[in-house]
Amino acid sequence: SMATSKINKWVDENQSHLIDRLAKAVGIPSVSGNIAYIKDVERMAEFLIEQLTELGVKAETRPVGKHQLDGKEVDLPPVVIGHIGNDPNKKTLLIYGHYDVQPALKEDGWKFDPFTLTVDPEGSGKLYGRGSTDDKGPVLGWLNALEAHKETGTELPVNLKMIFEGMEENGSDGLDKFIESEKDKFFAGVDCMCISDNYWLDTKTPCLTYGLRGINYYEIRISGPDRDLHSGAFGGAIHEPMTDLISLMSKLVSPQGEILIPGVKDLIAPVTKDEQEKFEAIHFEMKDIHDAIGGDVTLTNDTVKTLMGRMRNPSLSLHGIEGAFSAVGSKTVIPCSVKGKFSIRLVPNLGIKNTTDLVIKYVNDEFMKLGSKNKCQVVLTHGGEPWITDPNHYSFRAAHKATETVWGQAPDYTREGGSIPITLEFANILGVNICLLPVGRGDDGAHSTNEKLDTSNYIQGTKLFAEYMHNLAAEQA
Amino acid sequence: SMATSKINKWVDENQSHLIDRLAKAVGIPSVSGNIAYIKDVERMAEFLIEQLTELGVKAETRPVGKHQLDGKEVDLPPVVIGHIGNDPNKKTLLIYGHYDVQPALKEDGWKFDPFTLTVDPEGSGKLYGRGSTDDKGPVLGWLNALEAHKETGTELPVNLKMIFEGMEENGSDGLDKFIESEKDKFFAGVDCMCISDNYWLDTKTPCLTYGLRGINYYEIRISGPDRDLHSGAFGGAIHEPMTDLISLMSKLVSPQGEILIPGVKDLIAPVTKDEQEKFEAIHFEMKDIHDAIGGDVTLTNDTVKTLMGRMRNPSLSLHGIEGAFSAVGSKTVIPCSVKGKFSIRLVPNLGIKNTTDLVIKYVNDEFMKLGSKNKCQVVLTHGGEPWITDPNHYSFRAAHKATETVWGQAPDYTREGGSIPITLEFANILGVNICLLPVGRGDDGAHSTNEKLDTSNYIQGTKLFAEYMHNLAAEQA
Ligand SMILES: [Zn+2]
Ligand SMILES: [Zn+2]
Ligand SMILES: [Zn+2]
Ligand SMILES: [Zn+2]
Repeated sequence: SMATSKINKWVDENQSHLIDRLAKAVGIPSVSGNIAYIKDVERMAEFLIEQLTELGVKAETRPVGKHQLDGKEVDLPPVVIGHIGNDPNKKTLLIYGHYDVQPALKEDGWKFDPFTLTVDPEGSGKLYGRGSTDDKGPVLGWLNALEAHKETGTELPVNLKMIFEGMEENGSDGLDKFIESEKDKFFAGVDCMCISDNYWLDTKTPCLTYGLRGINYYEIRISGPDRDLHSGAFGGAIHEPMTDLISLMSKLVSPQGEILIPGVKDLIAPVTKDEQEKFEAIHFEMKDIHDAIGGDVTLTNDTVKTLMGRMRNPSLSLHGIEGAFSAVGSKTVIPCSVKGKFSIRLVPNLGIKNTTDLVIKYVNDEFMKLGSKNKCQVVLTHGGEPWITDPNHYSFRAAHKATETVWGQAPDYTREGGSIPITLEFANILGVNICLLPVGRGDDGAHSTNEKLDTSNYIQGTKLFAEYMHNLAAEQA
Repeated sequence: SMATSKINKWVDENQSHLIDRLAKAVGIPSVSGNIAYIKDVERMAEFLIEQLTELGVKAETRPVGKHQLDGKEVDLPPVVIGHIGNDPNKKTLLIYGHYDVQPALKEDGWKFDPFTLTVDPEGSGKLYGRGSTDDKGPVLGWLNALEAHKETGTELPVNLKMIFEGMEENGSDGLDKFIESEKDKFFAGVDCMCISDNYWLDTKTPCLTYGLRGINYYEIRISGPDRDLHSGAFGGAIHEPMTDLISLMSKLVSPQGEILIPGVKDLIAPVTKDEQEKFEAIHFEMKDIHDAIGGDVTLTNDTVKTLMGRMRNPSLSLHGIEGAFSAVGSKTVIPCSVKGKFSIRLVPNLGIKNTTDLVIKYVNDEFMKLGSKNKCQVVLTHGGEPWITDPNHYSFRAAHKATETVWGQAPDYTREGGSIPITLEFANILGVNICLLPVGRGDDGAHSTNEKLDTSNYIQGTKLFAEYMHNLAAEQA
């Protein structure tokens, strides 16, 4: 459109100014998981408030309670909320991001100081720094888009509400309560939501993400004798808890990745034609995953099956055993009680409760068959529901068109295999469509050393957000 | 006999003197596994040399090399060797014991200072202290018997050679080389051997021990991707090493304790009539093992089956997994390589090599069946052969009669389910019968807090050794 071409021009001409904004943000080491950085996290919230206020947003910090950090009770990082525009004839878009980051130390293997944004001296355009892609780059992308509107005198096409939290890397404590309590206040009138806190599947293809797997985490607890025993003295005389546990764990999943718990497969929502097409359209080669895992141990060489395995089918992973010998070397102990840990990734129709019912019944039935005198208990230690949203919603259509305009290609439609619990909270409490619209590439290395965001992704991401807002206004709801 | 009744009288009349000898020995904290006690270990060797010399034994310390202790290269504790008597018309008996002890700290839960021998103030006759039963009490039992002969003017009925090591609790480093190098020198002419470093099966019945199980310790190593992966991103797409490992481990042993590796059971030496009778004669109730394990999770309630399970049949224990998540809590990692640890207790005809051949073939065959793209390797990380000796040898007949005389009952004939590697070294290098003749009871708590030796076991043990030597002289070889 006329509006966005002016905006895009301004963005291109002001690249160094926008990169400077990101440099300022990366320069504040807002690590939420370490009390040593508590003032920096506060400073980062203030930085956002200043920037937002300058851009015409009514912004404020709001407390969300207290928590224990490194043994001390301290305030949780505040949420930063803001809104701009209040036109009843416009759609109201809610955006979410987080201003806290993962820890980073130069000694861990960073090429440059992690809290100094460094443009790759080799000219690749990579912007290195902790938080560059997760999630300061995307958050500032929104601010950049606002500035471009302001500086070019372009009217914002939507009412914009925003919430940026400072505790995402550390469990988002307090956020669910805040959303619940502000549901009919700050969040009133929100039409749809956009979150930019995930990544492209590869390094070349933009994507829109419309689903997340959930997770049920279980422990099978077997106990027998009341003390650890020496296998010399007692091996061959007793029911060993490890034997029972390993036997049960071996019956959960086949080496081909098939979940062996009866009833689980039957629950999975059938694949629709639209879904099938979206999976078949994803730009993905087996080399991508082989590179990512450092080996060729994929269950199949079929790309669609591989993608569905990661994104839309449940999976069961055996994580380990607590209470047994796990160090280097040899120890001949018979542990008296052991806990086997496994998790099941959940997908639509496979929820926390119906899955757990099947798991508990099956494990107990199989344990009975062992004829052991030990005791067995199966416990769900953590549950998170799967999430899926309508990828043909007007918000996705707007993002799709924005991607075509800015990147010159249609986006892949992906789902994340992992969970982003806060997405589920927003979806459940606000009941709106959420479009996950990533800015960074699959190799950005969020949470790793040498985290980076490509200059082109940062700049095009800014344009993408602007374009998306304009398309959103134009789409029929 | 006339001779031993004089000796027994002297022993009874000099109880407090003999207990005082044990108090002096326990008072020297000869912990071999900690550099802080290195001088005390030396002091303990000197104490033995002094005592032995006073009793007419030609005793000396001999170096056995160096080792790394707490990061420093230091001398290994010396062996103390001695001999008394050189009559070609007498049998030559070799005895072994160890003068080093396990670590002990009052804070660990000791009722009294572990390095101060404490007579139970409640009058039970228990003598508490580290090393009281393992192995200072038995070692001093031999010295007491020598003193009784000397003080009563009784001629020793055998030539006696003795070797006491100071490194038993820490792997007996250097001892095998010493035995090998002194085979035709110090050890020349040895007719049989007696070791007192194990325990009665219960608290009431003396025993003679004629066998030890060996042990093969294995690791199954499965590797797949070259880095740990997140189960959200990759669960359902790859062959997970843990799935393969758990599957393989589940195929090693049944919940009924049956080893599932083909060929293993066929190798076990058949039970002879004599063996069967010896097992049936053992004083043992299921309550004994239920008390010892703190539960009723025995594989059977048949006493003979239980004893054979512990002593003469192989067993397979699954010990744990290295490389997988093993802490408290939940972690959703897919470990890239894992090592499953298990051991097989070996019995006659089931040796290190033939067992390992079966294990490696079976695990590799089963791995092939999984159809996994991961890599599998089975490694024997440690092997120790089983040991058995003739329980009807004249040395055992002598010990049997001595037990009847001193304790008023025939001994049980037991085997140890665990290994005592040094027994095997002596048996292999010297080729003599070895009678394991324990002094202490099954509840003495060697290696535990509040280790004790009952006064009666210490005093009767002294008489037992004297009686044994006299019977040995009288038995037809
Ligand atoms: Zn993030
Ligand atoms: Zn993150
Ligand atoms: Zn010992
Ligand atoms: Zn010991």
